[in-house]
Amino acid sequence: MSELSPYLASVAKTIDHMIDRYFVDKTGELNKASAHLLAAGGKRLRPAVMMLAADAVTSGSSEELLHAALALEVTHTFTLIHDDIMDDDSLRRGVPTVHTKWDMPTGILAGDVLYARAFEHLCMAHAKDDAKVRAVTMLARACADICEGQHMDMSFEHRSDVDEDEYMEMVKKKTGVLYAAAAGIGAVLAGGNAVQVKALYNFGLNIGIAFQIQDDLIDLVTPAETSGKDQASDLREGKQTLLMIKAREKGLDLSKYRRDLSAADINKAIQELTDAGVIDEVKQMASDLVSASNKNLAVLSPSKERQLLMDIGAFFVTRSF
Amino acid sequence: MSELSPYLASVAKTIDHMIDRYFVDKTGELNKASAHLLAAGGKRLRPAVMMLAADAVTSGSSEELLHAALALEVTHTFTLIHDDIMDDDSLRRGVPTVHTKWDMPTGILAGDVLYARAFEHLCMAHAKDDAKVRAVTMLARACADICEGQHMDMSFEHRSDVDEDEYMEMVKKKTGVLYAAAAGIGAVLAGGNAVQVKALYNFGLNIGIAFQIQDDLIDLVTPAETSGKDQASDLREGKQTLLMIKAREKGLDLSKYRRDLSAADINKAIQELTDAGVIDEVKQMASDLVSASNKNLAVLSPSKERQLLMDIGAFFVTRSF
Repeated sequence: MSELSPYLASVAKTIDHMIDRYFVDKTGELNKASAHLLAAGGKRLRPAVMMLAADAVTSGSSEELLHAALALEVTHTFTLIHDDIMDDDSLRRGVPTVHTKWDMPTGILAGDVLYARAFEHLCMAHAKDDAKVRAVTMLARACADICEGQHMDMSFEHRSDVDEDEYMEMVKKKTGVLYAAAAGIGAVLAGGNAVQVKALYNFGLNIGIAFQIQDDLIDLVTPAETSGKDQASDLREGKQTLLMIKAREKGLDLSKYRRDLSAADINKAIQELTDAGVIDEVKQMASDLVSASNKNLAVLSPSKERQLLMDIGAFFVTRSF
Repeated sequence: MSELSPYLASVAKTIDHMIDRYFVDKTGELNKASAHLLAAGGKRLRPAVMMLAADAVTSGSSEELLHAALALEVTHTFTLIHDDIMDDDSLRRGVPTVHTKWDMPTGILAGDVLYARAFEHLCMAHAKDDAKVRAVTMLARACADICEGQHMDMSFEHRSDVDEDEYMEMVKKKTGVLYAAAAGIGAVLAGGNAVQVKALYNFGLNIGIAFQIQDDLIDLVTPAETSGKDQASDLREGKQTLLMIKAREKGLDLSKYRRDLSAADINKAIQELTDAGVIDEVKQMASDLVSASNKNLAVLSPSKERQLLMDIGAFFVTRSF
């Protein structure tokens, strides 16, 4: 994986530069609100997946598709802005959320502006028109699915009986489909055939689901100083993550942790989940998803980019923040 | 204009049928919330403008473009759902608004789902791919402008010094550009050349602005039983409409009407505005915009559809609800 870090750094630099050019350097309060979270950093993983998928299909094609890579980051950011309103979160990427820094109406509109700009930039990619039409359709369907996933996630808050299938369906929609669209759009715009597009779409879907499962693990085990987020917030809020669902299925009662938690409390919960085999099982599921996702890549010729796609999958389930 | 009413009725029937098929007949709470306002009726004027523009460019082409017509209605509805949240309005088209019937997060998501579906349906139109890419770009830019217009409109609430130019800019973005996009997209998808597309875009822009000015007039002079909306709400709320701006420019003080108003109060305000020539001036401006918009249509061969486009413009500034 030694080549992945510099690759991701270079993509992030390119995307950051485009964000400055097309979003930050604009006047007007609504444009500022729209650019706020985009400019607050981020790993730019969806653009990286899109560009690698494109290059894995047609070497060197991603250079022509930077606007489409930007479109994926912009789409992701619009969903974050709207999610933050719904969840009334006040901090994201170390900065105040848009509706906190401005107000709720401005947050809705800032997200809506980015939503439009995503489709506009997707159409600005240098690719064949039929491919662009397919890419627009793929992005639109992903956006509708993300909404459905967020709606499911919120509905889970009122329930304590969510099962594994429901959780997987929610995560597939909320997180998986945008990675699927990223890889699929890269393949489509690079001129990939139907088999390649489908394979890369499925690759993205699986690593996206694995990404979210790992996110839930990170929430539990990574101290705030490393992750930048409150540790064990899911546990405290009784959130229906895969960890919690598996724990419940094994008869563990985690409801006692739905309160302010000390570091010792968190360690006790981690120990309990470890002893019951829950953490290992969840890690195994994420790891199995990544292995399954790699099988999709067999339809592509070996290349540096194909290897980097596998490295990204491996990174998704080993990262600690 | 005798042919306009049956034409509009037939478009509305077609669009209503598509709404039933693609939105109402879906399961799941979020889909129900997304379909709620779409299914609550509406004159389907943007689809009509799109279809007439297409047929005025290439006779009979609109039959192939029904999905694009639907996309415009869906776009309009998504903006209404989000606007209702921002303005915290509880009634629209005689039904509870989405965030009132469900909740704010569901309202945001229902709008976001429609936003995606609009682009998906636009891509489902039977047209050339290059035309569809241009149409997607046009719709995306219109959406970003609508957000900007709504943001301007909200910022006006805290001001009492909005001038005519600012008002016109706001209305252009909030209402004009979607009619412009409707006519422009119809022309593009029907295979229109650059001159025709630009002419129809500008036609739509002007009648859209005139439509909004007429809406402000209707708010003042049309009783609730005819318009279905509270009479004189703009006056009561001190909203910066063209009427109010012109009145202020003429030295009229309408701030005394910022309170609960009886029918007699409203009549007194109407009399005051009539005597000062404000109502006539505003009517003239709307009428001039429609005349100007018709000049754009000179690049098209005479046809039934070109005439119906002119009739729609005339209808926009004579309607009383």
